[in-house]
Amino acid sequence: MSKPVCLVIGAGAGIGGNVAKRFASAGFHACLARRTDSQGLDRLVREVTDAGGSASGFMLNAVEEHSIETLVENIEKDVGPIEVAVYNLGAQIGDRALADTPLKTFEMGWRMATFGLFRLASCLLPCMVQRGHGSLLVTSATAAMRGNSGQHSHASAMGARRMLCQTLNAEFAAKGIHVAHIVVDGAVDAPDTLGKMLGPQRFQALRERKGLEKDGLLVPAAIAETYYHLANQHRSAWTFELDLRAHTDLAWWNHAGL
Amino acid sequence: MSKPVCLVIGAGAGIGGNVAKRFASAGFHACLARRTDSQGLDRLVREVTDAGGSASGFMLNAVEEHSIETLVENIEKDVGPIEVAVYNLGAQIGDRALADTPLKTFEMGWRMATFGLFRLASCLLPCMVQRGHGSLLVTSATAAMRGNSGQHSHASAMGARRMLCQTLNAEFAAKGIHVAHIVVDGAVDAPDTLGKMLGPQRFQALRERKGLEKDGLLVPAAIAETYYHLANQHRSAWTFELDLRAHTDLAWWNHAGL
Amino acid sequence: MSKPVCLVIGAGAGIGGNVAKRFASAGFHACLARRTDSQGLDRLVREVTDAGGSASGFMLNAVEEHSIETLVENIEKDVGPIEVAVYNLGAQIGDRALADTPLKTFEMGWRMATFGLFRLASCLLPCMVQRGHGSLLVTSATAAMRGNSGQHSHASAMGARRMLCQTLNAEFAAKGIHVAHIVVDGAVDAPDTLGKMLGPQRFQALRERKGLEKDGLLVPAAIAETYYHLANQHRSAWTFELDLRAHTDLAWWNHAGL
Amino acid sequence: MSKPVCLVIGAGAGIGGNVAKRFASAGFHACLARRTDSQGLDRLVREVTDAGGSASGFMLNAVEEHSIETLVENIEKDVGPIEVAVYNLGAQIGDRALADTPLKTFEMGWRMATFGLFRLASCLLPCMVQRGHGSLLVTSATAAMRGNSGQHSHASAMGARRMLCQTLNAEFAAKGIHVAHIVVDGAVDAPDTLGKMLGPQRFQALRERKGLEKDGLLVPAAIAETYYHLANQHRSAWTFELDLRAHTDLAWWNHAGL
Repeated sequence: MSKPVCLVIGAGAGIGGNVAKRFASAGFHACLARRTDSQGLDRLVREVTDAGGSASGFMLNAVEEHSIETLVENIEKDVGPIEVAVYNLGAQIGDRALADTPLKTFEMGWRMATFGLFRLASCLLPCMVQRGHGSLLVTSATAAMRGNSGQHSHASAMGARRMLCQTLNAEFAAKGIHVAHIVVDGAVDAPDTLGKMLGPQRFQALRERKGLEKDGLLVPAAIAETYYHLANQHRSAWTFELDLRAHTDLAWWNHAGL
Repeated sequence: MSKPVCLVIGAGAGIGGNVAKRFASAGFHACLARRTDSQGLDRLVREVTDAGGSASGFMLNAVEEHSIETLVENIEKDVGPIEVAVYNLGAQIGDRALADTPLKTFEMGWRMATFGLFRLASCLLPCMVQRGHGSLLVTSATAAMRGNSGQHSHASAMGARRMLCQTLNAEFAAKGIHVAHIVVDGAVDAPDTLGKMLGPQRFQALRERKGLEKDGLLVPAAIAETYYHLANQHRSAWTFELDLRAHTDLAWWNHAGL
Repeated sequence: MSKPVCLVIGAGAGIGGNVAKRFASAGFHACLARRTDSQGLDRLVREVTDAGGSASGFMLNAVEEHSIETLVENIEKDVGPIEVAVYNLGAQIGDRALADTPLKTFEMGWRMATFGLFRLASCLLPCMVQRGHGSLLVTSATAAMRGNSGQHSHASAMGARRMLCQTLNAEFAAKGIHVAHIVVDGAVDAPDTLGKMLGPQRFQALRERKGLEKDGLLVPAAIAETYYHLANQHRSAWTFELDLRAHTDLAWWNHAGL
Repeated sequence: MSKPVCLVIGAGAGIGGNVAKRFASAGFHACLARRTDSQGLDRLVREVTDAGGSASGFMLNAVEEHSIETLVENIEKDVGPIEVAVYNLGAQIGDRALADTPLKTFEMGWRMATFGLFRLASCLLPCMVQRGHGSLLVTSATAAMRGNSGQHSHASAMGARRMLCQTLNAEFAAKGIHVAHIVVDGAVDAPDTLGKMLGPQRFQALRERKGLEKDGLLVPAAIAETYYHLANQHRSAWTFELDLRAHTDLAWWNHAGL
């Protein structure tokens, strides 16, 4: 297969799915990976192909041993060289006091947000280095630079993720690999993630209050444009970190500490 | 005139000129303003028009009282509404010990890097607010977040500029105005600025050592792509701050403190 | 005079006066400088001497040309070598929209918060370098690292101040001079500054709501303990930046972006 | 036992041991915990008691399940309420390329630097909240805010630690618990840690080149003074984060990104 491959780990109906579609529309073969809802995954793949693009779907339990490693190996062998990888997994669990954050929850947050990225980098970046180019785009959050109330698990895992992106920059940028840390700061108009966390009624109310006409929720397709721009930057002028925020939602910005 | 206007303050042969060309190639009328070398300015304008674009040149001493204010007023009246403004002035003077940094130098650094931006914002943002949209793209430097040795004037002025961008975000984002703080971290392949600071021989040596094939100097045309992307982001997903760095030049990144 | 000298610029009844008292109680001769209210200044000096300490008062308009320079020269000549200098001036003016922030106000904010510190460093640090030791303790604010709404003048001036402290660190730490940037984050229980900004009634209401028993306003004498600790740190383990916050007042911390 | 207790987890001959001695000299009973070298531990305890202080030693494998939890429970029951806890464990392993950082190493770095602190906070802070006061002092590193080359494990674990300290601040400060994140930036004159990492000859050479007369290595007893100051700050003016650096060692500061 001659198309460059864009692998999206964490491909739901929000950021991940839209990033996959954006790259597919530009001639990439999109590999969409997610843990649950294989029908939803099929639907996303079909949306890409219906629009004239090319895509495959993969079920993936990212915290399982060897899962990410095997997926990368298979795609590199069967589909083609991964030119762009998007790591879009996290484990935001809503606000929890310390007493309501069991050790297992805290550890799982790190396994999804940090360790999975480390495993992806460990198996994928050597392939990219051999080819002399490649991009790893990492969805992150305000919690990576400011630990606010109730986010013991989320903030700690995201802070770890941010520092990991920087140590990857320090080792791999000069080898042609572009790792970018993308601070998505605010509520995303994503039924799969925010919608599930809030429940359908609160999510719809939020959409009506902030989103839609007022553009106060981050629109995933708009986010995807910046992911695509990052993967296309000339290597003399790469962005290693940026924020994405809705214009109306300054409360988020004030808490961000970027 | 029906084209949207892009005003570039500090339009030389580096970042400023290339940003002007990028917007002109996308259908903007580019207004290029600079302090010295009217022949160089004419040449830039001609390059834009030769490429099928539309541009005008303006001589501007930005630290002079009323200078920026008058320019903005005249362009808004005679050329058209300014949709995008680029503030690309600074006063980097090379490394200087405190004893070699006179009060006048320190004050001039602030007048160019900070006060000029404040004056531009004060006269331009009210017009943009009336229209409900507009972008102000601010070239900045690593010195805005890390005060390294010998940069008393430069770092202090850039730190002031960064905080000003953030207070502008806080007041104007929700009114539809996108102010972006762009941390250009490293040597730019720009004969007008870096070339003049280093002298032609040292500049050429640097180009041969880092730039050209190795892309170790930031290429202004590559920088301009990201400026253009910023001005086109959907208001639900704006970037307020990002860095731009050459992939080979990790020493800069390590000093950046972003 | 054989006592070491501690010069406090901006010595009112809040941080400045209490820092002066703290150093005086430890055997320093305190030089208190302020712009207005010579009776208040006399009262502060008398409080120091009544407690068995040693102090002098100086009226100082810090934005006036040569004012700081002359004061430093006179103290070094007539009182003794300045071992510790405290720069405690700012120009917080409450929240103001851009349209309500005249050019003069913005410039004055920089003259007080940034340029005055640069002038103090320029005339004092060479004396300290000759002696091989000395401390410059700089009161700062959250606004130095986060530009919140309505603080165009304050945040920009404080951001400039912070970067200046860092360039001073870079040049002078190895020469034995300890410059520390102290981020006072929150309302200080200071009638001279916060009291005047809010008016007596709102200030008293704030004290009753947050301060007193609940310690929700920063107590100046408590702040002074940390200033004193900083000046006494061993040069192998200096602090260049720290924050000071009231334990109950997490809203401030969330906005701080430190 | 009527003395307040200071528990130090990671009590070797460097920061940990010196902090324990500092608190013991001020009337605390010091509980010293470490994983290896029970003779060294006995020696430290004896040094405290010989100096007129009071101390006990505990062997602790902090990554073992229930180990920290049991230690805290036993001390609270048998020795007395823990007024101050110091978390001084990390897993800096020297610079390693990604290919030389196995999954197990990366996970172990997180277990020591991050998860151990989370477990300590989870079992200790509820006790402190009941008493309405207490301090948790956390030794950290530059790697917590800047991911430099070769520090994939260390930087990621420390970044996680820093965000965790902030979420603890957000939940526990108003309840009277002071959590402080202490960025020790540079080489510490500590034979147990740096000495073992470098080997005796390189360590001695470093001491002669930078330390001793020039105070270019951080002296653990000097560091301990600041830990003691933090535990004594008035709750109206707490420091949540500070750096500690040697005055001569600006290269470290330039890399720090604080």
